[in-house]
Amino acid sequence: MLFRRLASTSSLPLTIRQLLLSANKCENTSPVQVHGWIKSVRRQKNVAFAVVSDGTFAPGLQAVLSTSKIPKNLTNGASVRLNGTLVKSRGSGQERELQVDTVEVIGECDPETYPIQKQALSVEYLRDNVHLRARTDSVGSMLHLRDSTQRVLHRFFERQGFCYVHTPILTSNDCEGAGETFRISTSISETPPATEEPPEQGFFSKPSYLTVSSQLHLEALSSALSRVYTLSPCFRAERSQTSRHLAEFWMLEAEWAFTSKVGDVCQVVENSLKEVLQQHSPEISILRESGDEQRFRAIEDAGHSSRSWTKITYSDAICELANHNNSFPTFQFQPRWGKALQSEHERWLAEHLIKGPVFVTDYPETLKPFYMRLNDDEKTVACFDLLIPHVGELAGGSLREERLGILDQSLEKHRLDKKEYGWYADLRRFGGAPHGGFGMGFERLISWVSGIENVRECIAMPRWAKRMIL
Amino acid sequence: MLFRRLASTSSLPLTIRQLLLSANKCENTSPVQVHGWIKSVRRQKNVAFAVVSDGTFAPGLQAVLSTSKIPKNLTNGASVRLNGTLVKSRGSGQERELQVDTVEVIGECDPETYPIQKQALSVEYLRDNVHLRARTDSVGSMLHLRDSTQRVLHRFFERQGFCYVHTPILTSNDCEGAGETFRISTSISETPPATEEPPEQGFFSKPSYLTVSSQLHLEALSSALSRVYTLSPCFRAERSQTSRHLAEFWMLEAEWAFTSKVGDVCQVVENSLKEVLQQHSPEISILRESGDEQRFRAIEDAGHSSRSWTKITYSDAICELANHNNSFPTFQFQPRWGKALQSEHERWLAEHLIKGPVFVTDYPETLKPFYMRLNDDEKTVACFDLLIPHVGELAGGSLREERLGILDQSLEKHRLDKKEYGWYADLRRFGGAPHGGFGMGFERLISWVSGIENVRECIAMPRWAKRMIL
Repeated sequence: MLFRRLASTSSLPLTIRQLLLSANKCENTSPVQVHGWIKSVRRQKNVAFAVVSDGTFAPGLQAVLSTSKIPKNLTNGASVRLNGTLVKSRGSGQERELQVDTVEVIGECDPETYPIQKQALSVEYLRDNVHLRARTDSVGSMLHLRDSTQRVLHRFFERQGFCYVHTPILTSNDCEGAGETFRISTSISETPPATEEPPEQGFFSKPSYLTVSSQLHLEALSSALSRVYTLSPCFRAERSQTSRHLAEFWMLEAEWAFTSKVGDVCQVVENSLKEVLQQHSPEISILRESGDEQRFRAIEDAGHSSRSWTKITYSDAICELANHNNSFPTFQFQPRWGKALQSEHERWLAEHLIKGPVFVTDYPETLKPFYMRLNDDEKTVACFDLLIPHVGELAGGSLREERLGILDQSLEKHRLDKKEYGWYADLRRFGGAPHGGFGMGFERLISWVSGIENVRECIAMPRWAKRMIL
Repeated sequence: MLFRRLASTSSLPLTIRQLLLSANKCENTSPVQVHGWIKSVRRQKNVAFAVVSDGTFAPGLQAVLSTSKIPKNLTNGASVRLNGTLVKSRGSGQERELQVDTVEVIGECDPETYPIQKQALSVEYLRDNVHLRARTDSVGSMLHLRDSTQRVLHRFFERQGFCYVHTPILTSNDCEGAGETFRISTSISETPPATEEPPEQGFFSKPSYLTVSSQLHLEALSSALSRVYTLSPCFRAERSQTSRHLAEFWMLEAEWAFTSKVGDVCQVVENSLKEVLQQHSPEISILRESGDEQRFRAIEDAGHSSRSWTKITYSDAICELANHNNSFPTFQFQPRWGKALQSEHERWLAEHLIKGPVFVTDYPETLKPFYMRLNDDEKTVACFDLLIPHVGELAGGSLREERLGILDQSLEKHRLDKKEYGWYADLRRFGGAPHGGFGMGFERLISWVSGIENVRECIAMPRWAKRMIL
């Protein structure tokens, strides 16, 4: 036989995080091998202390070497292989440290030219070095926080009987006019744009867009599987440069059948968020080190409160805003029923009136998309925005119009082509059910939990107008 | 106060799946409420049997009603609310059934015009009715299988110390010439394509593509976090119409540092797949009902074998293929060293020579992308393709070239612009480490596990050339 069968080899060696966790569980003095990158070296007369990190645990592992063993090229950023024993640390700041027997530099790193220097680096500088910035404690911790947060959400929705689905990114649907969309075309990369094909001859024989929301697709799937959700990339070609907008972002969206109160939709949002806020993640403490303690205490409170978060109708919110503005002129824009809430209004509601997360419900139908369910007053729709102090709108949702006649009227009012939405009407025509759902910006959630100010630092490789690196 | 605080309401009611699971754990005769859609009604003189499904469990729940209670509009596809008690079933085919007290039709469904009729529907017909096809047992089960499979994979990689990351979908990188790419532009949806902006004035000030692979981005992140993976949409503007290609598909990709044997990369692929194959999913049995038993036994064997799957080098594979073809002329294309393996060759290797999954390793460098690590023979690279009977290539991976000098030569050989890949070289320049990884087509995995022939039935809403519905 020319080919070979090999016995199963063991799985991968333990990471530094796994090593420290297992050492906390039981004392073990057998030799270990550690791989990682040098973060600092402190030399004393006979002994030197190096911090090595493999990126799985931001504080890294303290390695104790005899000074004579230190290779010249053991500099910050170098990748190394260390053999030694994990022992109780005599120093403060860590429980365990590695008593090193042998050290080997695998990949050198010139300390003069290495872009990730030890001193504080500006966020702008790190954005320019996006290929290396995950090596910093802050960006590395943010990435771990994204990971642990999505795991909390997956567990939550699994327990609630939801099926995780992948909705399409490419769509022929320019989705409810939610903003400017990206359009796609095919081209072999070398072809100049002038030769792009007109869409009717294009790849899909029709104009194709990047999705701005998975909601309509989720509605189709929830009319079959009852409860569905997704965590999916979404795209908006917004040119505004704010700390809360990205051209490519991730959105958690859930949709479920047989729900008929907007308060029940809010409750699912709140329950899922409380589990996110209650997670035990070492990264949260690292990310919050430099932030505003009071703000973090408020987040803790919101996460642990057994009371429901506050709900206020749009109409009541307008009253509160107008009353306040009459007594203490505060706002650039006069709050007025029928007008959108401005950012300044949203901030005041969450930060001053409620001092915590607040669901604003039942907006005027004229302010919202065609699919939201009309209330009995025939002026407002059964919807909510969730406003968070210092973050703004974190989530939005609604009941969806399941009554075919009213849906038709709404399509007309919004000047949408009924034929285009024939499939959407079918979902009502054949065994329709009251249903609802919501969408939540994942980067804004990370921003809230961590205290990171700008969503550009809440994603590995951010994209915004005029800006795409890699 | 105009706003209200409400006590926390309970979470969502149990789904049919949850209800049946909890009933199996303990006897409970308290009244239950069930929502779902009617799948069939069988009337007898005094009593009628209806199967109701909420899409969480394909066989649904048998509901027993007195015939006098049946509303006229209780037809297939109608959505209903049932109140009753879960009792031991007297009939065969199910353990529990619902003794119905009250039944209410929520959403009617005209049996004459309902597109999802009870008789077998062709896959083509269901593709045309993609907004409704998740209501069939097969597509519904496939969606649940996607869900459970991704959960197995998430658990596997978490346990192995990997961090789940979101890599960008939009990239300025037309990615290693892996095929035709989609290009993006901005346009307000109403704007005719003639007015599209040239890319240098476009949204990102440079040509922008949809990713064909997350690998290069994962390499950057693995040089910081050691072990990273993603399950991400990928896009190829391939015009070929095969049962194995989609224009939009999902790919699991993993990348990790400090690995230096291609066999170790194969081992991670194999371990993760064995866990997928060992999962207990009621949907797998449903999907396999109509398939080839022998094939499914082979899959079971592959999943449970404690032996490693076979590995064979490309060079040895060519020998085997050529020897076979000389004795029994079989192939349209003569197998020859230096030439790509054709589909017929891959099938023969997996289905006839090995009769199971097989890793073909160490292909000629001329057949593979620039980033694969050159072997000491300077002719082949440290890579593999995983070939699966009846599926073809399921996964591919390699060690990545970490030696800067050799990488530079490879970029030159592949006529790639060194400046464009400056960031990629940086990953080696500053603390580079031997590393590797792989990519696995998620729809092909679902196809393998389920026996579904065409990947178009392995995703909720498939996209391919000339075809995009919704």
